[in-house]
Amino acid sequence: MADFRRTAVTSFHGVASHPSMVRSLLAAALLATAAPLAAQVHVSPAVDPKVALLRDKALDGDNYAWEIVEGLTTEVGPRLAGTEAEARARDWAVRRLTAMGFANVRVEPFDMPVWVRGYEHAEIVAPFPQPMVVAALGNSGSTGPAGVTGEIVAFDSVDALKAAPDDLVRGKIVFVDHRMPANQDGSGYGEFGAPRRQGPTIASKKGALAIVIRSIGTDHHRNPHTGVMSFSDGAKPIPAGALTVPDAEQLVRILKRGQPVTMRLVLQSQTHQGQSANVIAEVPGRDPSLPPILVGGHLDSWDQGTGAIDDGAGVAIATAAAKQIMDAGRPLRTIRIIWFGAEEPGLFGGNAYRAKYGKQPHHALIESDFGADKIWKVDSKLGDARKPEAEAIGKVLAPLGIVTGSFTEADGSDIGPMLADGLPGVGLSQDGTRYFDLHHTPDDTLDKIDPAQLRQNVAAWTAVLGVLSGGIEEPKARKRR
Amino acid sequence: MADFRRTAVTSFHGVASHPSMVRSLLAAALLATAAPLAAQVHVSPAVDPKVALLRDKALDGDNYAWEIVEGLTTEVGPRLAGTEAEARARDWAVRRLTAMGFANVRVEPFDMPVWVRGYEHAEIVAPFPQPMVVAALGNSGSTGPAGVTGEIVAFDSVDALKAAPDDLVRGKIVFVDHRMPANQDGSGYGEFGAPRRQGPTIASKKGALAIVIRSIGTDHHRNPHTGVMSFSDGAKPIPAGALTVPDAEQLVRILKRGQPVTMRLVLQSQTHQGQSANVIAEVPGRDPSLPPILVGGHLDSWDQGTGAIDDGAGVAIATAAAKQIMDAGRPLRTIRIIWFGAEEPGLFGGNAYRAKYGKQPHHALIESDFGADKIWKVDSKLGDARKPEAEAIGKVLAPLGIVTGSFTEADGSDIGPMLADGLPGVGLSQDGTRYFDLHHTPDDTLDKIDPAQLRQNVAAWTAVLGVLSGGIEEPKARKRR
Repeated sequence: MADFRRTAVTSFHGVASHPSMVRSLLAAALLATAAPLAAQVHVSPAVDPKVALLRDKALDGDNYAWEIVEGLTTEVGPRLAGTEAEARARDWAVRRLTAMGFANVRVEPFDMPVWVRGYEHAEIVAPFPQPMVVAALGNSGSTGPAGVTGEIVAFDSVDALKAAPDDLVRGKIVFVDHRMPANQDGSGYGEFGAPRRQGPTIASKKGALAIVIRSIGTDHHRNPHTGVMSFSDGAKPIPAGALTVPDAEQLVRILKRGQPVTMRLVLQSQTHQGQSANVIAEVPGRDPSLPPILVGGHLDSWDQGTGAIDDGAGVAIATAAAKQIMDAGRPLRTIRIIWFGAEEPGLFGGNAYRAKYGKQPHHALIESDFGADKIWKVDSKLGDARKPEAEAIGKVLAPLGIVTGSFTEADGSDIGPMLADGLPGVGLSQDGTRYFDLHHTPDDTLDKIDPAQLRQNVAAWTAVLGVLSGGIEEPKARKRR
Repeated sequence: MADFRRTAVTSFHGVASHPSMVRSLLAAALLATAAPLAAQVHVSPAVDPKVALLRDKALDGDNYAWEIVEGLTTEVGPRLAGTEAEARARDWAVRRLTAMGFANVRVEPFDMPVWVRGYEHAEIVAPFPQPMVVAALGNSGSTGPAGVTGEIVAFDSVDALKAAPDDLVRGKIVFVDHRMPANQDGSGYGEFGAPRRQGPTIASKKGALAIVIRSIGTDHHRNPHTGVMSFSDGAKPIPAGALTVPDAEQLVRILKRGQPVTMRLVLQSQTHQGQSANVIAEVPGRDPSLPPILVGGHLDSWDQGTGAIDDGAGVAIATAAAKQIMDAGRPLRTIRIIWFGAEEPGLFGGNAYRAKYGKQPHHALIESDFGADKIWKVDSKLGDARKPEAEAIGKVLAPLGIVTGSFTEADGSDIGPMLADGLPGVGLSQDGTRYFDLHHTPDDTLDKIDPAQLRQNVAAWTAVLGVLSGGIEEPKARKRR
């Protein structure tokens, strides 16, 4: 997930942050909430028994999602938008989607500016010389190999930086220490992401030499959180980096000693014009004249980790759910799977899809881009006329421990602009308590994904697709007895 | 802690690994176990009521230890043995120990070989190109700036590497994937540290180009665990590094694909002759003819973190406890505080002290070098004649949740050789459940220390010193009424 707000409706208490604790808690929670339905059990009239069975089958045994996220993160690894690594990831995606039996597998390219990280280093020069761990933010200006050295001027928020006279900032290295607490729906990312999004532009316009921010993250590890920003209002690019949370706290302690603090900062990077692409595949519907259901995540990742939670898990969940439907038969409506390219630097893939297909009707848009911890809430925006469909989704998800939220909103990163245009959508919210421990850091790796929670995600998506698909017809070969 | 074995006697269940959880659990545990004694309360005849009061005062309000570890890690930061950073740390120590009012503050230098880390980089070249996070082990050979590139040959243990024919290893990069589980007494470090200690020598003798090991650590973060090793039996130095745990797991997944795996490794480093020193200070006893009590930790740290748990906490705890005694009056026996230099690269400070003072009688040696989580066990080796003193220590520690272990053994890093020589000692064991999540990594920073648990450590040490000191006489000024 690059950058979108989530609204705060909280009723599920988040799981503990240690992976092994998460696993055991979830195993218990899933056993408690998802009672498998035998084929013989009569289900509520609001729930299609076929869909309930598919949901439970996925919960019990889906391996498609794990195989995709394990394969993509292992055989490609990091895949920064617009680089040859992202191109290798696309080749991998085409091979995998084809091998899984999807139809109309295709690559739809688009042009974009590509920012690439170089050598990075930070150190306190005075009064207490010591190295610090830093990562450049996406679109940071480059210091060049010599780096820059300047006095730190510190602010506790973007508001304080905004209010500062230019004289205080000019020629200095701005430090913004705006702290982000963890919460389960991730809603803090909007509020607390401001230093990353707005800080560099404000600092540049006031004549700062560079800016370093406290990582927009909720962990206490020496792993810096990168993420995109852009210089707006004609601000000239300056070097912009994120210190790890422990380094930011160390800098605060050093500043509190009351002496001038000097930092040396090397943040090298390059920008060039390049290309990315969306990868698309389909489960053809029985009635091709009906609008498709669009499901996806994004293929690109930041460069520091292997993009397991952001967003290998997302493409894996969407694709596994579509495959679960395809295994069961032919849906009435086409399911269109999309692995968006270049989400991180600014929703380039989503915007390319929107430019090409955004005026066409869609039955629903759904995107997974918030890790793979347990889904706890479903929102939808299908319109008043389709409220029974939205309610049926709520009914079939309830046994997975998922509450029904809004009927008038849904969100997503790449699909966000199209939802804002008025296209219908469904939003499945994962627990975000530990998401911002890992997001955009070197620590976004496969070991952070819990297979049991991943299966709960696929089960939920399968159920939603089961409802939206308009009914699944078993393959003819199997129907002849 | 560089390198010592702890024996496994486990009866305390470890606390959770997240700092905030640790804090709240500990606060509850300490309230439950340590009932403060009012001066008026009659205590067990085995416990000196003055010592019990000092213990509870430290538990309730010691800030000396926090101020030392906060100050040292903030105002100096990393302090690799034999470097100018360690020299700055010594200056800091002398200033602090003098300001705290200790007597005979002095620096005792010694010569040593100094190993210094340079630029480091690892990447998989084929079949799935991607970067990996690595750190050189102390005393690693240098690849030079060009690095080395070779095929990986993988082993699940040092035993498997030992058993391999030289032909299998020659010219390749050895990978050893020996995994270390967490346990509360840290006893796995002996067993599971073998790849770091022995692996490089074995690999070198078989003609390996280089060796990378899975970090000797229990976490799942992209933080490599460094640590010392040495090439023995005439083995020529080769580059030797530790991959982070997630990177080692990634390499295993890549190897499982069955294709040859090529790695490029850059591990630059330099070695030169240099100097380190011990810093010593004293609380003079009323009877200078009696053997002193030696208490300490080590001042040097690895270079990746700021050496908070290893071993800023240790010098802080020992010094705070001595200060608590000094604040209360004059002990019968001298308490000698030592901040050992150059423990990490091979107990150089301990050996220098031993060479100078090791033949002189000591009343007891105690060292803190295992972080600052809750002390759960006390061992001692004071000899049969002093069993009542050892039992009195057990009695005064019990209200802190500390069990009595052995009466015939004690351990410590720098003091280990002197304990082996036959000098008496006391060992206070911290809970080590999360110690090897942090040990020797960039993540060894101040935020990993829980002030409440740190105070429990100081309370325990104060009580032990209270018993060993032979009685504290209140200052004359206060005695005159």
